[in-house]
Amino acid sequence: MPQFLDSRDADFDARFAALLNMKREDAPEVDDIVAGIIADVRDRGDAAVIELTEKFDRLTLTPDTLAFSPQEIDAAIATVPAAERDALELAAERIRAYHVRQRPEDARWTDPEGVELGWRWTAVGAAGLYVPGGLASYPSSVLMNAIPAQVAGVERLVICAPTPDGTANPLVLLAAKLSGIDTIYRIGGAQAVAAMAYGTETIAPVDKITGPGNAFVAAAKRRVFGKVGIDMIAGPSEILVIADAENDPDWVALDLLSQAEHDEVAQSILITDDAAFGEAVARAVEARLETLERRHIAGPSWRDYGAVITVRDLTEAAEFSNRVAPEHLELCVADTEALLGKITHAGAIFLGQWTPEAIGDYIGGPNHVLPTARSARFSSGLSVLDFMKRSTLAQMTPAALRAIGPAAETLAISESLEAHGLSVRARLDRLNRE
Amino acid sequence: MPQFLDSRDADFDARFAALLNMKREDAPEVDDIVAGIIADVRDRGDAAVIELTEKFDRLTLTPDTLAFSPQEIDAAIATVPAAERDALELAAERIRAYHVRQRPEDARWTDPEGVELGWRWTAVGAAGLYVPGGLASYPSSVLMNAIPAQVAGVERLVICAPTPDGTANPLVLLAAKLSGIDTIYRIGGAQAVAAMAYGTETIAPVDKITGPGNAFVAAAKRRVFGKVGIDMIAGPSEILVIADAENDPDWVALDLLSQAEHDEVAQSILITDDAAFGEAVARAVEARLETLERRHIAGPSWRDYGAVITVRDLTEAAEFSNRVAPEHLELCVADTEALLGKITHAGAIFLGQWTPEAIGDYIGGPNHVLPTARSARFSSGLSVLDFMKRSTLAQMTPAALRAIGPAAETLAISESLEAHGLSVRARLDRLNRE
Repeated sequence: MPQFLDSRDADFDARFAALLNMKREDAPEVDDIVAGIIADVRDRGDAAVIELTEKFDRLTLTPDTLAFSPQEIDAAIATVPAAERDALELAAERIRAYHVRQRPEDARWTDPEGVELGWRWTAVGAAGLYVPGGLASYPSSVLMNAIPAQVAGVERLVICAPTPDGTANPLVLLAAKLSGIDTIYRIGGAQAVAAMAYGTETIAPVDKITGPGNAFVAAAKRRVFGKVGIDMIAGPSEILVIADAENDPDWVALDLLSQAEHDEVAQSILITDDAAFGEAVARAVEARLETLERRHIAGPSWRDYGAVITVRDLTEAAEFSNRVAPEHLELCVADTEALLGKITHAGAIFLGQWTPEAIGDYIGGPNHVLPTARSARFSSGLSVLDFMKRSTLAQMTPAALRAIGPAAETLAISESLEAHGLSVRARLDRLNRE
Repeated sequence: MPQFLDSRDADFDARFAALLNMKREDAPEVDDIVAGIIADVRDRGDAAVIELTEKFDRLTLTPDTLAFSPQEIDAAIATVPAAERDALELAAERIRAYHVRQRPEDARWTDPEGVELGWRWTAVGAAGLYVPGGLASYPSSVLMNAIPAQVAGVERLVICAPTPDGTANPLVLLAAKLSGIDTIYRIGGAQAVAAMAYGTETIAPVDKITGPGNAFVAAAKRRVFGKVGIDMIAGPSEILVIADAENDPDWVALDLLSQAEHDEVAQSILITDDAAFGEAVARAVEARLETLERRHIAGPSWRDYGAVITVRDLTEAAEFSNRVAPEHLELCVADTEALLGKITHAGAIFLGQWTPEAIGDYIGGPNHVLPTARSARFSSGLSVLDFMKRSTLAQMTPAALRAIGPAAETLAISESLEAHGLSVRARLDRLNRE
């Protein structure tokens, strides 16, 4: 059974705090192993990558076969049924249309002192996208990572996707093609992250690495951070649904289960202002769990980490939701805009009962790479901005330097940075002599 | 002597690559110590912070004196001379005026299928700013970190600033006051970072930690990343000046020295299309080094890590500069706009000979917290966006779900995520029945 909480209960605060602090990830101690793998790839390049791929993926490669050939890609893509191809194309188109709007604007202006100021956005030069193999090999994630990079204007975009025992996912290759990527290395794990960060004889280094992965990939990304940029260290998925009684319990149950089926440590929370509705949803979840294909994953997730929270009103619901700062938030209430106005922390927000979270995973347009583990308190989902950076601009005139230069000199001297002060003073002296 | 390189030389590529890969930071092995300190603060809270402050800063505190009292702050501020106060106020005003323009815009639109899409920006709830003590205690850094947070709308903003042996910098306290911060803890090191990330009995936890610090602070920020957001792990400062012969060698020398004086491992590089001008600048540097207060820092920096690179033309200069991806870049050439168009990676760009980099450190308006160690390839200087995050929005209508829902269902099934598919299907079935 999931937990049932009621904000009127005496022990509510303690139980809600315990829910917030629930440790769902049992991070294995892989850091030393990962450090060794990275050092090995830096030392021996391709040879290390090939050896590690043989060891972990039971796949024998050569420098020439590290990447899929165009023929292999085309042959795999040809096996994709038309319905899936059409769906993926529609998803790519809609994701692109959403992300194009995120392109940031440059700015230039002259302030009252005559200083010309501004900023300019430019794309990251090269980006590498990690795509997990096996069960978590999701073509939708390829689109969600690659399209923002492409829209940002990243010139070189490559994928690393392990193919354990040589098994590739044709839909992943199709998604790569739809995103304009033609270099796909069939390598994975920490060795793939190291190869993209430091480069090998065959694999050119990139500037930014994004994409989900297992504990080894996460530890490797954390270690190469600084040498390259990374997106985020993703944790298990979460959904929080705020629903009043005017909802179909089965729909809400399916929305909760669509996170629970991802991972035994995924978390699904319902907040409702109607206790009876909460119970009805819990019954609907149990009914669906009887036949759900992934019930061996969704069942433990729901029973160990699920929660149904009854609140006095929707204002309280928003308050608790903000403390959770969920990755996905559904607002299944009559006045979605009023409730939205009270939400301060959430990765992606789905408005109204006709917007199941699964729409956002695939086809809505917004990105599905989102902050987990309460990190929506301080971070955002993946966007075009993650593949761009901003240079600030400043241009002084002699008159402007006369106006504000002396203050800079004063502050430089107060910080005991004499050369800073002199670099301003030398120019002011010239102006005073003229 | 700094290195002299010429792009026409046979060994140029190898020497330029060596310059790029020069290891300037000898990161001490502090990670285990820092892990212990963080665990101690998590376990024992205030008691641990107080003990560690006694040990490292030789300062005895109690929970009541962890923060400066309003009286202490006012008394310290009263000692600041009027000229410094005025300069700091002008700086704060100009920094605020620049950063206000960075406030991002929300968006809402309806697409052709009737899906309502958009995003909404909200501020981080609480931020903590680390301000180093001792030699690197810079009031300007307080402004550069605190003002963007304030402009973003961060509700709770605190400072941790160690005061070794009890010595506080009145200008730091004044800068805090000018930025609207009244909670200033006199603690530092990994213990301060741990206290801000996890909270103690006295110190409430924050959501984001920014600000520079020594190796212990950097290691602690890296470790708490995920629990809270962090800005960047700053390395030693760098400047790259692209200058033609129409410049005063002394001005360029002072600009190079204004980075060199920060740190023995700071790096200053001149790229010029005139070898004789490069030599003149090198002579001017040596002349200034004879009397510069910080010559014991700036001298080793220039001689060990400085470089003068002669290139064929300014296009080549831009190309090499982009490979360096400098933190600070000065374009001291006749046609700054033409050269700017060729620059792809740089933290802050200073246009023309009347814009010494020191202006940007204090009073220009743009932020001086900038990406170091070539990370301008993939990251930006601190901005208002670092203290905000974006929630994506999506709202389907029944008609929109009919139009694009089936594609989402197809993709969910192809990824073996049945509940995802069913959450869409259950709604489509209702529509089909109606």
